[in-house]
Amino acid sequence: MNKEDFFIKQISNSKYNGDDGAFINGYVYSMDAFFENVHFKKEWVDKKIISLKQIAYKSMLVNISDAIAMNAKPKYALISIAIPKSYTNENLKELSSGFKKAARDFNFEIIGGDTIENSKLDISITIVSKTKNPIFRNGVKEGDYLCYTGKLGESKRDLETLLSGKKIKKSSKFIKPTLRADFFYEAAKYINAAMDISDGLFLDLEKLSNSSNIGFEFFKEIKEEVGISGEEYEILFSCNQKNLKKIENIAKKYEIKLNIFAKAARGSYKSSFSNHHFKD
Amino acid sequence: MNKEDFFIKQISNSKYNGDDGAFINGYVYSMDAFFENVHFKKEWVDKKIISLKQIAYKSMLVNISDAIAMNAKPKYALISIAIPKSYTNENLKELSSGFKKAARDFNFEIIGGDTIENSKLDISITIVSKTKNPIFRNGVKEGDYLCYTGKLGESKRDLETLLSGKKIKKSSKFIKPTLRADFFYEAAKYINAAMDISDGLFLDLEKLSNSSNIGFEFFKEIKEEVGISGEEYEILFSCNQKNLKKIENIAKKYEIKLNIFAKAARGSYKSSFSNHHFKD
Repeated sequence: MNKEDFFIKQISNSKYNGDDGAFINGYVYSMDAFFENVHFKKEWVDKKIISLKQIAYKSMLVNISDAIAMNAKPKYALISIAIPKSYTNENLKELSSGFKKAARDFNFEIIGGDTIENSKLDISITIVSKTKNPIFRNGVKEGDYLCYTGKLGESKRDLETLLSGKKIKKSSKFIKPTLRADFFYEAAKYINAAMDISDGLFLDLEKLSNSSNIGFEFFKEIKEEVGISGEEYEILFSCNQKNLKKIENIAKKYEIKLNIFAKAARGSYKSSFSNHHFKD
Repeated sequence: MNKEDFFIKQISNSKYNGDDGAFINGYVYSMDAFFENVHFKKEWVDKKIISLKQIAYKSMLVNISDAIAMNAKPKYALISIAIPKSYTNENLKELSSGFKKAARDFNFEIIGGDTIENSKLDISITIVSKTKNPIFRNGVKEGDYLCYTGKLGESKRDLETLLSGKKIKKSSKFIKPTLRADFFYEAAKYINAAMDISDGLFLDLEKLSNSSNIGFEFFKEIKEEVGISGEEYEILFSCNQKNLKKIENIAKKYEIKLNIFAKAARGSYKSSFSNHHFKD
């Protein structure tokens, strides 16, 4: 068991464990860290590959992605931000404009947080979101079809390009994730279980398998470069076969590619790959 | 204006600005960072001056303190924790036992968060707390009496001792803050405005002055070592003179020293001292 899982196992209350956020009385509470040297590198900012505004924006989107995958609409955000002494007021304005853009784009309010001085830029965000029909990870039923939105692989490729010291294109999903909010909110009533793809399809499927106590029969082999690409923020979900057509129509309406790749069956699924995040 | 204040001014929604937490529909949302090299040093752990369990416990108390000062009872906590690779499972157990002790002591649930690997131990916590009668910073009325609980000065003295490389006593408030929950929840109905003393009495009085648009007539001079000691987590509050006796009786019941030190008057108050936190 890795350190993260061990710690979570120590601390967490099983009642809320295993989902992107905790659902309580109509609200979903989720929290994610977005740290320098863990999720991004300062040299990417120095080389103008990603701006501080984009870093702030992405740190918010990564959090909102959790809410969306539970069919919850972000209402409030709290931001804990640790900022290096060297940052200028201009830098701070860039960061705050990224946070505020996310709040505008997804229609929520920034209600508080904490600001401290630190050796590097470290952001933690809590999102409070609202839902009448939360979608959990434990809802996959035997015979369900497994789907994911969009195209997987770009985030890993672009991260590797960045780590090799080269630039990536400005439109990369690694810089600006594409969230599937409109599609998912409309399709949610037909969906049994969901989560966002943050650790990579294979690892996230393992989590889905554990939560729903079920295995998967794949329709065809999923390529490694597709299955181990993390930080994709596409949505992985399962639905009853009878709802598949309706969901496909909603996906068509929003021009979203839908990949129907497996069927849920008795058993369990274990990924043979581990987390791709780079570490200090 | 310092960096923290500048950033907060950039980002925050004035509606919720200026209090320890944001009050929305019966709930208070607060968030605080507790970072290595900002709020504690690794060498204090190595020298066994403070344990990882105590660090985790203090990081929670610092957050709960905000809730208490608004007359709100902690219900849920989310923890974002960045942990060095070198930490053993035993270290992780110590940390989680500190978080869980706080949850037991103050009767709330840990419902989620995020765990990442990082170069140092950095904790951010969000507390969701409940109140029917929130106390804000903007409630000081002309003629109100200003009071604080307990004795100020120890935190600064002990921090200086630590920074000079010496040990402090295990019972120091700097290691384990004394929160005034029972007293404050009972006294709250007689109180007009409140906040916890985290930056030091003088700086926190300046915030109270700004929020309530009022000044203070001091009954006697407050010594520098009392006024600039941060991380005290005592409660600073104001009340109408007619309620003073009732509040004093409640303080007596809980064996809490009450310091009545000023009267609110037209004007404004500005501290001539800046934040005492040590920085990288």
